[in-house]
Amino acid sequence: MMETHRKVQVAVIGAGTAGLAAMTQVRRVTDNFVLINGGALGTTCARVGCMPSKAVIQVAEDFHRRKVFDRVGIVSKQHLTVDIPNVLEHVRDLRDIFVDRVLAGTTDELGEQFIDGYARFAGPNLLQVSGHRVQADNIVIATGSRPVVPDAWRRFGDRVLTTDNLFEQDDLPDSVAVLGLGVIGLELGQALGRIGVEVTGIDALQRVGGITDPAVNKIAVDLMGREFPVWLGHRAELQEESRRLRVSSGEQTVVVDKVLVCLGRRPNLDRLGLEQLGVETDARGVPKHDPHTMQIDGMPIFIAGDVNADRQILHEAADEGRIAGRNAVSKEIQSYARRTPITITFTDPNIASVGVPFTDLDESQLAVGEIRFGPVGRAVLMAKNKGLLRVYAQRRNGKLLGGSMIAPSGEHLAHLLAWSVQLGQSVHDVLRMPFYHPAIEEALQAALQDLKRKIDPSTRDTFELERLDVQPRP
Amino acid sequence: MMETHRKVQVAVIGAGTAGLAAMTQVRRVTDNFVLINGGALGTTCARVGCMPSKAVIQVAEDFHRRKVFDRVGIVSKQHLTVDIPNVLEHVRDLRDIFVDRVLAGTTDELGEQFIDGYARFAGPNLLQVSGHRVQADNIVIATGSRPVVPDAWRRFGDRVLTTDNLFEQDDLPDSVAVLGLGVIGLELGQALGRIGVEVTGIDALQRVGGITDPAVNKIAVDLMGREFPVWLGHRAELQEESRRLRVSSGEQTVVVDKVLVCLGRRPNLDRLGLEQLGVETDARGVPKHDPHTMQIDGMPIFIAGDVNADRQILHEAADEGRIAGRNAVSKEIQSYARRTPITITFTDPNIASVGVPFTDLDESQLAVGEIRFGPVGRAVLMAKNKGLLRVYAQRRNGKLLGGSMIAPSGEHLAHLLAWSVQLGQSVHDVLRMPFYHPAIEEALQAALQDLKRKIDPSTRDTFELERLDVQPRP
Repeated sequence: MMETHRKVQVAVIGAGTAGLAAMTQVRRVTDNFVLINGGALGTTCARVGCMPSKAVIQVAEDFHRRKVFDRVGIVSKQHLTVDIPNVLEHVRDLRDIFVDRVLAGTTDELGEQFIDGYARFAGPNLLQVSGHRVQADNIVIATGSRPVVPDAWRRFGDRVLTTDNLFEQDDLPDSVAVLGLGVIGLELGQALGRIGVEVTGIDALQRVGGITDPAVNKIAVDLMGREFPVWLGHRAELQEESRRLRVSSGEQTVVVDKVLVCLGRRPNLDRLGLEQLGVETDARGVPKHDPHTMQIDGMPIFIAGDVNADRQILHEAADEGRIAGRNAVSKEIQSYARRTPITITFTDPNIASVGVPFTDLDESQLAVGEIRFGPVGRAVLMAKNKGLLRVYAQRRNGKLLGGSMIAPSGEHLAHLLAWSVQLGQSVHDVLRMPFYHPAIEEALQAALQDLKRKIDPSTRDTFELERLDVQPRP
Repeated sequence: MMETHRKVQVAVIGAGTAGLAAMTQVRRVTDNFVLINGGALGTTCARVGCMPSKAVIQVAEDFHRRKVFDRVGIVSKQHLTVDIPNVLEHVRDLRDIFVDRVLAGTTDELGEQFIDGYARFAGPNLLQVSGHRVQADNIVIATGSRPVVPDAWRRFGDRVLTTDNLFEQDDLPDSVAVLGLGVIGLELGQALGRIGVEVTGIDALQRVGGITDPAVNKIAVDLMGREFPVWLGHRAELQEESRRLRVSSGEQTVVVDKVLVCLGRRPNLDRLGLEQLGVETDARGVPKHDPHTMQIDGMPIFIAGDVNADRQILHEAADEGRIAGRNAVSKEIQSYARRTPITITFTDPNIASVGVPFTDLDESQLAVGEIRFGPVGRAVLMAKNKGLLRVYAQRRNGKLLGGSMIAPSGEHLAHLLAWSVQLGQSVHDVLRMPFYHPAIEEALQAALQDLKRKIDPSTRDTFELERLDVQPRP
């Protein structure tokens, strides 16, 4: 193959969520760009992330629901069962729909503007891609991330699963140890357990699902621990044992068919040749960059999405890609506000956090309102009345700062709370909003009413509705 | 029994949601009050409304869900069945929990402050209750509502069901005609159909679920019509036929075991002796009153909850009760802002409306954004990708006015939209909020993005994130 040399206004490296979002912005201004992608097309979200995991979770939830049947008058003479190969096929069918959708209208129609290969910096404005050279005035790095797997475990071969290959399996093993109980480990651990896999969950920390609020973490550990053994506080050690794996964690040990490694996602930085840029990097090797412009300090290079390790969440990756793409083609570097942080773990109940993490709050200035779901009307009706919702505000004036929850329909409560935080609302402001009955939103109302009682009395408003004018009595 | 005469500062008539809310406010200021209630204790919501209906709906939804099992890999060798007497017992068990909760701490502990009986005005400040006289400086009328049943149908006896007796049945008939497809008729029609009752739904109007948006109504009629026959546009006529009932509507006719009458709820005004007050009333017989003070024009009398026929919804009844109670004990009459209107019909998909009804909008100034749920990621994952969401704004500047939907998880989308409307947000403001992936909230985002394209181009913002400062390019 002859080496080619191309000059473009913008090169976008990576055709995932961030890269495609960047390209969309670039395309509005110029056709003089290339999109470079190494490896499989389709975003992390659609291929191996949000979408296939949510497909498994939905099946698990539907199947798990049979446990209320007796209580509510639904009769099942024979137990329902799950046909796991069929479930996995269903998951891949859905995944293919989502992957096709991502590709349609983006990489499908690019022609020469698309380059298949791994890009490597040969200089600040020069990329090497499978023998080709691309000189670009502006570059967007959006190479994404991949699951962390300790090198020592590679020797266990196909007994080590990650999200990269889990959904490709034809069948699931009888037993799995889920190593790492962050967002992904907790979601998949619960879902696999619910469709009949014998799951053991292990994490080196004492907290699960990335929860920083200790009260919420305690409930989460308790609720998850009712579905499968949860071993916390010790790193997992693996040993081969008659073609299976012995997994040990502190004093505890179990032999399983496979392990599902969920130790986080590593930025795909190592093949980029970033040393050519001569830029400062942080401990994870990520070049210093501005999260409001996505610019790498002082260069016409932007870094967006999972690869910058800031907020490895789809909607944030899309925002970062859009900011990076926009700044890659505009006359000035424009700063953009970021959205209020929100994370959702799609366990049942959902785990979610909003705004300032609990560990970053100043306890001396803090008021916390909380509600347990035991008596919450709608939660009782749904037979899902387990969980805890905590809402944070400035004690002085009731201004909302964020919250943490393990809650039925927590994904929806988290949106309401995040929007309120982003708008700078106080607990009094939010209590003036409509809360319908019997909706789960009444749980948020109850938590806010509890919070209100903990605000400085001098700024406390005892009546929820906004006062208008006053008239004399008859 | 000796006739007694009592003098109090406040008399509250009716121990439902509005009356109890009023009493709570009164109690903060004085013990010199009475609560008078005729008939069964417990609120309409807890006894015969929201709570028992939602309990039936939840069972129906759980049972209906079996229809996705095949597709997703859940194997059921024998069909699931429903044991209806057990379902009804489960519903009553839940209902009793909610009724007990309403009574606890309110009417339970009142002692002499509670009077059992129907109150009747003997003068502007004088009530007659089962032979007793109560003279009250201030009176709150909160007598609620009851199902409308045409007199001519009373002769069909126990073949006529309403929400007052439906949940008391030991078993359900094989076939039911649901007469009236407003919120209650649609919810119960769908739920009864799903647990195996042969349902025919009939309404004299061409619209269902109180929907005013014709596009949403069309989808709702279509989706509901797939579950049970829906006959619209003709009043139902009933005739006895060999101990069953022949129900005719226009050209169509069916013989059923019973009818469930859902023709709305009539304010309980007729036994109050309101003619003693000499106040002006509207066509429904409701005294003229101010919805921000709940005061009846020029009198120390307040009217709150279903009985005033304004907004027959629990959270509104509670607000009205609180306003009425507060004004009944305060030195001046205080006006309060009301919450943005929101209604939710707990069908599947949910039907919801927010803000200004479609029929009250000025089409010449209007922009409408919409999204169908067919391709919405989370809806596909849930196998619930049916429905339509429409969002309204001022075309000139994108200020949100409201919306209408039949949507999976519509109850949650309706809250987000209602809060945004109440805060006076524009479509651009709301698009700056976080929308998590893959959450159903992305459907609202898509509808808003569609809406944005229909706003006057001079005020249209093409980039969603808020601009901060600008820096020169490197």
